[in-house]
Amino acid sequence: PDDAARVAARKRDAQLTKPPGSLGRLEELAIWYAGWRGEARPRVAAPQILVFAGNHGIAAQGVSAFPTEVTAQMVANFEAGGAAINQLADLAGARLDVHALDLDRPTADFTQGPAMAEAEACAAFARGWGAVADGTDVLVVGEMGIGNTTSATALASAILGGNGWAGRGTGVDDAGLARKEAAVARALAVNADRTGLGVLTAFGGRELAAMAGAIAGARARRVPVILDGFICTAAALTLWAEEKGALDHCVAGHLSAEGAHGRMLDALGMAPLLSLGLRLGEGSGAALAIQVLRGALACHSGMATFSEAGVAGG
Amino acid sequence: PDDAARVAARKRDAQLTKPPGSLGRLEELAIWYAGWRGEARPRVAAPQILVFAGNHGIAAQGVSAFPTEVTAQMVANFEAGGAAINQLADLAGARLDVHALDLDRPTADFTQGPAMAEAEACAAFARGWGAVADGTDVLVVGEMGIGNTTSATALASAILGGNGWAGRGTGVDDAGLARKEAAVARALAVNADRTGLGVLTAFGGRELAAMAGAIAGARARRVPVILDGFICTAAALTLWAEEKGALDHCVAGHLSAEGAHGRMLDALGMAPLLSLGLRLGEGSGAALAIQVLRGALACHSGMATFSEAGVAGG
Repeated sequence: PDDAARVAARKRDAQLTKPPGSLGRLEELAIWYAGWRGEARPRVAAPQILVFAGNHGIAAQGVSAFPTEVTAQMVANFEAGGAAINQLADLAGARLDVHALDLDRPTADFTQGPAMAEAEACAAFARGWGAVADGTDVLVVGEMGIGNTTSATALASAILGGNGWAGRGTGVDDAGLARKEAAVARALAVNADRTGLGVLTAFGGRELAAMAGAIAGARARRVPVILDGFICTAAALTLWAEEKGALDHCVAGHLSAEGAHGRMLDALGMAPLLSLGLRLGEGSGAALAIQVLRGALACHSGMATFSEAGVAGG
Repeated sequence: PDDAARVAARKRDAQLTKPPGSLGRLEELAIWYAGWRGEARPRVAAPQILVFAGNHGIAAQGVSAFPTEVTAQMVANFEAGGAAINQLADLAGARLDVHALDLDRPTADFTQGPAMAEAEACAAFARGWGAVADGTDVLVVGEMGIGNTTSATALASAILGGNGWAGRGTGVDDAGLARKEAAVARALAVNADRTGLGVLTAFGGRELAAMAGAIAGARARRVPVILDGFICTAAALTLWAEEKGALDHCVAGHLSAEGAHGRMLDALGMAPLLSLGLRLGEGSGAALAIQVLRGALACHSGMATFSEAGVAGG
């Protein structure tokens, strides 16, 4: 980030016609964004939402409430404009790009070995890295992939350790949840000693590798990222596992209702902007949080100062 | 509310291309709004933000960090477009109307007797009732008034009982906070046995009476209201004290950082949409929450159903 822009933004914030600190989290959000964009008085003009879709061998083990065909059906729904993320992208004035990643060739069942070959994981990562558009000034990264909360659960378990990372995803029943937990335990045993980005190859999902790539690619372009829920945060964790500062350009868009998301955010030291019980994925919670960022920047960059407005400063 | 529209909205929600319940709070918000508007697939097209400003005799007791002149100065700032609420109104596409209520004639010091004559309080209430524009489809009610957190504190104390309602408002220091607490204690003793709308007359503030009037007037027009923070909720409490269902057309826009706001919302059984540490007033938190409502309705009214999209229903 650009320290001069951040300092200038903080100075401006102190001069705006409001009691100091009275815009709460919006003030820090605007200053953080200003630092990453290198501009003391920025606006969001070109938000981008990337949705990556992938299919998972693990789905054959009955870990999801929905059949695998739904991944491709939902991609068609994204393309036709009928999904939640389409509506939220319109509301945010955001460009939406959908990348379906070899849906007819699911990853391997990671209870038997790694989900992907290393070259496959790299290709997906590179696809994500390259998907950030020129001119994008804030990025949301979402996903669709039947079975991918199991993938994300394995990633979180491998990186953060401990138990209890599995949740109900799209709404699996008790028996399905038990299958999911057992699958993750087997997967961790079979793919032991993976670290950092290696866990993406092992438990992957092409869409999770692509999400990690897009988040890293945004950093290289100084594009701030609003993280979505459980799956997006699991993908982000793989970068953080390599380098603790790798997510400094990210903010947590929302707290998902998917059980263990809050624990992930705690591990990352992030507080969510929204907490509305969403657990849809697609980037939906983060897309809604674009409005919070817009609000923060509208105030920061649009308000009058005490001296401009002729208001006594308290 | 319109039960048929609410039932139809709930039925539609169950058919949308998402796992049941996966949009969390957004789903209930859309259904609630549909019921009040009598439409199963509504949109917000004409949000209105009303800001009422008033001056307070109690301010002479040193209960605020800012001098009384700031009320009129901030009204000028609203009119010039320089305040936070102007930026947030623009973001929400909302009409903003500012009503300055006899600023050169502050209410009486309510540690000596009632803040207003009954006729004055009624006039302010009526001003608020009449300020809701034809065609408004969601209302935010905000305020400006140096000293008005003291007024709101007295209202909450009188209606809900107990202690600890005073907070730092715009940022009063320890000595100021002690003066504020003492003033509220004297005010309650001097204006004992007030109930319901009578407390508005006693501890009032014309802007608080106008806010209560606008909230009630919106109800009569079936216009849903997004409540703002501590002061707005205190004004709303006066309606609730008369009739427990009087705020069924309201949703809590945000949780203010002004200490006791969360206790007020608990008493009302309301959960806030946002919790970002705002404590500015002006309707700012509620204005930002318009975006959450817009997001809820964009999804509810814009998404494809499973059968429209050809997606398997899980």
